Amino acid sequence: MAQTTPNHTQTVSGWAALDNSGKITPYTFKRRENGVDDVTIEILYCGICHTDLHYAKDDWGITMYPVVPGHEITGVITKIGSNVSKFKVGDRAGIGCLASSCLECDLCKDSQENYCDNLQFTYNGIFWDGSITYGGYSNMIVADQRYVVHVPENLPMDSAAPLLCAGITVFTPMKDNDMLNSPGKKLGVVGLGGLGHVAVKFGKAFGLHVTVISTSPSKEREAKERLGADGFIVSTDTEQMEVGKRTLDFIIDTVSAPHSLGPMLDLLKVKGTLAVVGAPAKPFELPSFPLLFGKRAVKGSIIGGIKETQEMMDLCGKHNITCDVEVVTPDKINEAMQRLAKNDVRYRFVIDIAGKSSEH
Amino acid sequence: MAQTTPNHTQTVSGWAALDNSGKITPYTFKRRENGVDDVTIEILYCGICHTDLHYAKDDWGITMYPVVPGHEITGVITKIGSNVSKFKVGDRAGIGCLASSCLECDLCKDSQENYCDNLQFTYNGIFWDGSITYGGYSNMIVADQRYVVHVPENLPMDSAAPLLCAGITVFTPMKDNDMLNSPGKKLGVVGLGGLGHVAVKFGKAFGLHVTVISTSPSKEREAKERLGADGFIVSTDTEQMEVGKRTLDFIIDTVSAPHSLGPMLDLLKVKGTLAVVGAPAKPFELPSFPLLFGKRAVKGSIIGGIKETQEMMDLCGKHNITCDVEVVTPDKINEAMQRLAKNDVRYRFVIDIAGKSSEH
Repeated sequence: MAQTTPNHTQTVSGWAALDNSGKITPYTFKRRENGVDDVTIEILYCGICHTDLHYAKDDWGITMYPVVPGHEITGVITKIGSNVSKFKVGDRAGIGCLASSCLECDLCKDSQENYCDNLQFTYNGIFWDGSITYGGYSNMIVADQRYVVHVPENLPMDSAAPLLCAGITVFTPMKDNDMLNSPGKKLGVVGLGGLGHVAVKFGKAFGLHVTVISTSPSKEREAKERLGADGFIVSTDTEQMEVGKRTLDFIIDTVSAPHSLGPMLDLLKVKGTLAVVGAPAKPFELPSFPLLFGKRAVKGSIIGGIKETQEMMDLCGKHNITCDVEVVTPDKINEAMQRLAKNDVRYRFVIDIAGKSSEH
Repeated sequence: MAQTTPNHTQTVSGWAALDNSGKITPYTFKRRENGVDDVTIEILYCGICHTDLHYAKDDWGITMYPVVPGHEITGVITKIGSNVSKFKVGDRAGIGCLASSCLECDLCKDSQENYCDNLQFTYNGIFWDGSITYGGYSNMIVADQRYVVHVPENLPMDSAAPLLCAGITVFTPMKDNDMLNSPGKKLGVVGLGGLGHVAVKFGKAFGLHVTVISTSPSKEREAKERLGADGFIVSTDTEQMEVGKRTLDFIIDTVSAPHSLGPMLDLLKVKGTLAVVGAPAKPFELPSFPLLFGKRAVKGSIIGGIKETQEMMDLCGKHNITCDVEVVTPDKINEAMQRLAKNDVRYRFVIDIAGKSSEH
């Protein structure tokens, strides 16, 4: 059912899934007028995140159809509200997963609005005005300036887009666990996909010794040669896993399929931390012995607050970090999603919403 | 097979399981002569830990029979070696789980010998001289002074014994997570058994607000009236669990049966920590959503180092904390173990090894 909130008068062309077939089709809908705290953004690029697949197919049973996915958005500001001081027309801007939060709780006040109890997402959320939010698979978006970040001038808009979700998802646990200023520490990255490959880039930029842990021996070469990883462990090779025991300070596990965390914990030194950022529908297996006997920790986190998202974008600008992307035209979204479901992408699909890319 | 190490000349009366029936029977064996760094202890009391059941029945497939269990030992020093300065004859002493470690690694040097790669336990371990270690179900033990602690004068020897394992197991995560000096913080204790009831006592001594989480509604009264708990949540009551969401700062989960950690994580505030100290044979279930969306941590730890064990004993002396125990004579060990397997004990069985207790 299309939006009927009174001030939603702006017509937008986008792409939506209409039912749990998950098939994405062109879809025209309405967005609100640009309010006093809002900015309007002409969307240039939008990344395709695994989460988009889950919502499109209603894997979590919470999808409100039609759903316009997309929360890795870059574009140019075309309009600003009278209260907006953070942005001006023409600015390069990014929008991630957050559309609104309560602004009043301790978490919001502490720039951790991503954990606010009343958090609403960029799509499939309920905005302050009661409207359902529609995401970045569309040519224009209106957003409260509080949830918008600047994209550094030196970063290409296509390969910067996935930083807004994939990037911040791995950046936050690295920051929280003191990996930004600990050169020489040993980082493990489990899974070399959209999230994992950015974690490797962050690790190298921050001077860490980076080991990629993967089920695919074939990824060793690209991990080392393309991304600069220092080490590679095939997680199904018991000998390699045995040699790797108690060698790593910190691991980011980006795998979103259910698996046992035990083998990863064994790779950590005593008191090491395993940060999990994948969200499989079934629980992880957590054997007690590697947790207890190594005094280890398993920590979770979900994206990041806007303040740390901007901090990450600025660091990416400084270190020239972007994602490795495959740019696709909007008519190829379904094909891209099918390939993504099979992890057949190096490393993130980005939709060329405005047709500005010369590659396609 | 009995010990045949050359200097193992002292005959000791004890109790051992001879096979995986787990049945405990009187057993005579040899211990080493008191070496220069050793103390000899006349054992007065020894607690019965769940671990003893696992070893007696070879649940973990690592038992070397005959096994003399027991690692919650209190007694009086009867002999000291020439290098021993920490103890004198007549001192009240305690021995926990540790018999030896490498003494050379970073963990040993940092008083974390409980995570040393070459750690050996008080029973079913291999001591430096190659002998198999025998535990506290016996009337005498010889131990390197490094692994022995003082028992404060004001603590009864029977109810102090379980502090050496049950006590230190819950003390360490509380200390590591800053619960010793955070009055008013909200502590949750999952499971009201040998470990849980000590955690409640520590919590109250340290000024915390303590909520017991249990499957048994019948335990509410004893938790509050006997142990001073402030709150009680029946974990199978969805309404109570819903009300408890995001209310606790820190939880110690002492349940050693496999279970999902998800409901416990939901009780934690954002960035809260769940410390697990139980070691079920099967993995815990760890659902990703309550971990990720609450930026929470699951941490493991196993007993504590000798330095922190002494620190705990001293704090127990200061706050007059001991375990609630049922003292049994050695001929009742099997009966006690059967009851323990059914959690039918308030809250720890302690064996009156020397027949000094007037209660039996």
